[in-house]
Amino acid sequence: MHTVPHTRLLETHHIAELVARRGFRTVLNTLVDAIAHDYRRWSAFDKSSRMACHSVAGVIELMPISDGDWFSVKYVNGHPGNPKQGLPTVMALGALAPVHTGVPVLLSELTLSTALRTAATSVLAARAMVAAPPVCMAVIGNGAQSEFQALAFAGLMGVQQFRLFDVDPEASLRLARRLKTEGLRVSLCHSVDEAVQEADVITTLTADKCKAQLFTAQAVRPGAHINAVGGDCPGKTELHPDVLAAARVVVEYEPQTRVEGDIQQMPADFPVTELWRVLSGQVPGRQHPDQITVFDSVGFALEDFSTLRTWWQMAQEDNLGHWVSLAPSSANPKDLYGCLHTAHNGVVHAA
Amino acid sequence: MHTVPHTRLLETHHIAELVARRGFRTVLNTLVDAIAHDYRRWSAFDKSSRMACHSVAGVIELMPISDGDWFSVKYVNGHPGNPKQGLPTVMALGALAPVHTGVPVLLSELTLSTALRTAATSVLAARAMVAAPPVCMAVIGNGAQSEFQALAFAGLMGVQQFRLFDVDPEASLRLARRLKTEGLRVSLCHSVDEAVQEADVITTLTADKCKAQLFTAQAVRPGAHINAVGGDCPGKTELHPDVLAAARVVVEYEPQTRVEGDIQQMPADFPVTELWRVLSGQVPGRQHPDQITVFDSVGFALEDFSTLRTWWQMAQEDNLGHWVSLAPSSANPKDLYGCLHTAHNGVVHAA
Repeated sequence: MHTVPHTRLLETHHIAELVARRGFRTVLNTLVDAIAHDYRRWSAFDKSSRMACHSVAGVIELMPISDGDWFSVKYVNGHPGNPKQGLPTVMALGALAPVHTGVPVLLSELTLSTALRTAATSVLAARAMVAAPPVCMAVIGNGAQSEFQALAFAGLMGVQQFRLFDVDPEASLRLARRLKTEGLRVSLCHSVDEAVQEADVITTLTADKCKAQLFTAQAVRPGAHINAVGGDCPGKTELHPDVLAAARVVVEYEPQTRVEGDIQQMPADFPVTELWRVLSGQVPGRQHPDQITVFDSVGFALEDFSTLRTWWQMAQEDNLGHWVSLAPSSANPKDLYGCLHTAHNGVVHAA
Repeated sequence: MHTVPHTRLLETHHIAELVARRGFRTVLNTLVDAIAHDYRRWSAFDKSSRMACHSVAGVIELMPISDGDWFSVKYVNGHPGNPKQGLPTVMALGALAPVHTGVPVLLSELTLSTALRTAATSVLAARAMVAAPPVCMAVIGNGAQSEFQALAFAGLMGVQQFRLFDVDPEASLRLARRLKTEGLRVSLCHSVDEAVQEADVITTLTADKCKAQLFTAQAVRPGAHINAVGGDCPGKTELHPDVLAAARVVVEYEPQTRVEGDIQQMPADFPVTELWRVLSGQVPGRQHPDQITVFDSVGFALEDFSTLRTWWQMAQEDNLGHWVSLAPSSANPKDLYGCLHTAHNGVVHAA
């Protein structure tokens, strides 16, 4: 069968390769710019909350979005029990298509990519919300995403000092070792309060699916910015309601965050500000230097859209990935059946 | 990077290979059985109408469904202007995952697959709705799907005689040649009425996005079964409202068909019967031998679910397809960042 493949496939090692070639900081900066660009043209997007298929074991979600020129959709699961079976907790993939042809030109892993885009989005929000360039960052929860967050804030915002806490001290040690090799100053803390009390930025990245209350408003210094990443689905929160009540709270897409974010514990009319309003200059990220600010991040389809478009550009530049055929090609487009008779000549079985 | 790939990818040539190894008729029979099995356990499924992203040029749709044990989603576009740019009108792909892990174990093309599953669904409905074993079938619209439909009805239901009509006589000639090589009797007709008047089964497969009225109720013989496949989106219908009004109408999933099917032209309370009720024996497919029956088919996510599960089974038997990595694998699942530093050693660049 004569096929003209139309779809580029990027596996996880291809994404790692894109990052290795350009450097972590350059790729993060590119993602920050791409995501900022897309948030600033918010009204161009056809937006919806993600669709979720919940089960006892976890959740499978679909996150579609379109700006009228491009369409993207992300598939992502979250299954905390998977590692016991030797499987990843999270796997994600995305498809990107120009709206005028509908051809899925890119299929990409979004597992590693999600950690990158989440860190980029955190930096993007923090830049617009911090009182002053941050020096010290607390990292509460030192799991898989913690290096991405810490190194993004170090590389892109100049944070030099990290105060780590995790219920698993081994996780903190692992993160500390990596940050030290980058020349960063690290303190291992014995409690959340100890970690957060001197921090300019507090990033919460805890994994437990529960209604946690990691710290009170009193534990936080005036003017601190809280980058709340771990509370991202119904029943999973990290912040004490008093912290939210005392803070200016910025969210990605309000209808989704009301259900999934830390603000799920607050009344339906609890005031929040959407990030795009801050980024487009309509409203300030913070109202005074001593205000506590919270970016209640849950992850929005727009960020994956920006990421897929960035990967598409980079993969074209590098000629990276596999080409795959998702439709037959024949001289006569009406002869779909004919490909059944020619296709099995010359099929290559991959390893 | 040490990766354990979890996802099997089937391209179009792999699906063609699965069919070539087993034979068209065997694969169709397997799909008919799989789809029937799933329709009969209708209440097990979490169902929704497909999500559509419409544009001037076409439509991009997502079709998710789950039975609590498995989750599937199909991406499909429809862009009539694509062939002018050398691109396929339709491209489709699907993902299949066990709900208890969320791991997308299969990614498959669904372009060729959709033609197969649509023909299988047509046969499945017809078996439950025809007055007697059909001998003569009219095929109105002789495009890409027409062989699949004609050969499915020949191979699985014993139809021996075909009456063809298309506004493009070349399309009919091409279909006629193929059917004749299979030993079938073919009449080329000069009008729709000429094609349908003696037919036991009438399959409509026209492509134009318009409100067509291919034939009147008077043109059809008593007891005929109409397999209406082409009217499948808002603004695209094939049947005269009098035909629908005179017939017993069976649909796949009523909420979706009310919007997309031929019944979009009928009042909201126009009576229809869902296919699963017929297949599970709750209601008869037809009520008397002279009744006109219509299967107003638009394509439902359940049929793709059944197809993906069938491909998954067959691909395992044949060890067919590529394995792709959509998540990093490392000794420590918390060390996602570590894979960035090891991934670009040993990357294989595909052709």
